[in-house]
Amino acid sequence: MTGTTASDGPDAPATAPARRRGRPPRTESAGTRDRILDAAREEFSIRGYEKTSVRGIAKSAGVDSALVHHYFGTKEQVFEAAVEVAFAPVLTERNTVLDGPLDEVGERMTRMIVGLWESPVTRAPLLAIVRSAVNNEIAAGVFRRLVAGQLLRRIAGQLDVPDAELRAELAAAQLVGIAMIRYVIKMEPLASADAEQIIGRVAPVVQRHLTER
Amino acid sequence: MTGTTASDGPDAPATAPARRRGRPPRTESAGTRDRILDAAREEFSIRGYEKTSVRGIAKSAGVDSALVHHYFGTKEQVFEAAVEVAFAPVLTERNTVLDGPLDEVGERMTRMIVGLWESPVTRAPLLAIVRSAVNNEIAAGVFRRLVAGQLLRRIAGQLDVPDAELRAELAAAQLVGIAMIRYVIKMEPLASADAEQIIGRVAPVVQRHLTER
Repeated sequence: MTGTTASDGPDAPATAPARRRGRPPRTESAGTRDRILDAAREEFSIRGYEKTSVRGIAKSAGVDSALVHHYFGTKEQVFEAAVEVAFAPVLTERNTVLDGPLDEVGERMTRMIVGLWESPVTRAPLLAIVRSAVNNEIAAGVFRRLVAGQLLRRIAGQLDVPDAELRAELAAAQLVGIAMIRYVIKMEPLASADAEQIIGRVAPVVQRHLTER
Repeated sequence: MTGTTASDGPDAPATAPARRRGRPPRTESAGTRDRILDAAREEFSIRGYEKTSVRGIAKSAGVDSALVHHYFGTKEQVFEAAVEVAFAPVLTERNTVLDGPLDEVGERMTRMIVGLWESPVTRAPLLAIVRSAVNNEIAAGVFRRLVAGQLLRRIAGQLDVPDAELRAELAAAQLVGIAMIRYVIKMEPLASADAEQIIGRVAPVVQRHLTER
């Protein structure tokens, strides 16, 4: 829940999440920004997009609503900044998925997504985006931009197969479905299965979607 | 949206959905029951479980709230009856999945799930259950009962492999993820892809999960 707080002080690196909007400039207020983002992730992950209000986020962060608007703009922009942290590893350390032998891309992709869900830092924003995207078109649009636009298109760009984007989405579907059943709906035995066992079974399927001719 | 109305009159067969609660006895009121169920599916699919009220369902069906409670009981029971229609083909015509050669079970399962989502009769209840289950523990419980309890356990029971239930859930995860990306989040190109192309790519993966040693 405090994903960016520990490392994300005034000297935060340029790759810190939620920097994109660029306003206001990062100064001593970074702590407040992060507190707002933590509160936003918490609220969105519990309530989903529609039932979360900027006012509720502000209250939870102990600041005035006007400050939330000042830092981030609209509720949609708060949402995007809040969930972007979940995709930061994909966007900034994407080499871990895209670099390396193509015949192991399935395992790298599976390991990355399962790793994001297993991490307490990124599970809350992922829950936020899933809970929000299924019920709200604005949140669904954010999901499409981050997942399809940022992640899947890059993976598809590496593939030398027909229908590369469709294949990347079918691979992503396997991982999205596991997230749904294991972390959201919590169906047994998948919810309690060992992560490595899941990766061992799923990575070859993801690989098959991506590269098998 | 009018899934059961056409065939579900006073002479409805014993396999008609939402018969389970058994109260009150099916008489000339079957038309009213179906109107309430149609309204419930519509409301749950648009609003999700939490934001749907028995009062709203009653209003949409043109009846008094007390009548909804009389026929179905609690909101959870209305929900279960409303979404059960989506699983009726699985429960009553399950032979189409479970009967037949085991080396084609992947294709039968894939075809059944994609078929349910492609059908205008069953898409609304499926949307209702997905939108509700991700945000509400009661609805998630209904999902677990219907999908894990009714469908996956039966499929797993046919498999002569270790970890049969886990495998059935990983296969289901592939199909749940496709439903999420294609029908709920509507990500392209998967949202507009030909259903047969999807079945052709996905059935072998589902088969692999279920039976490959």
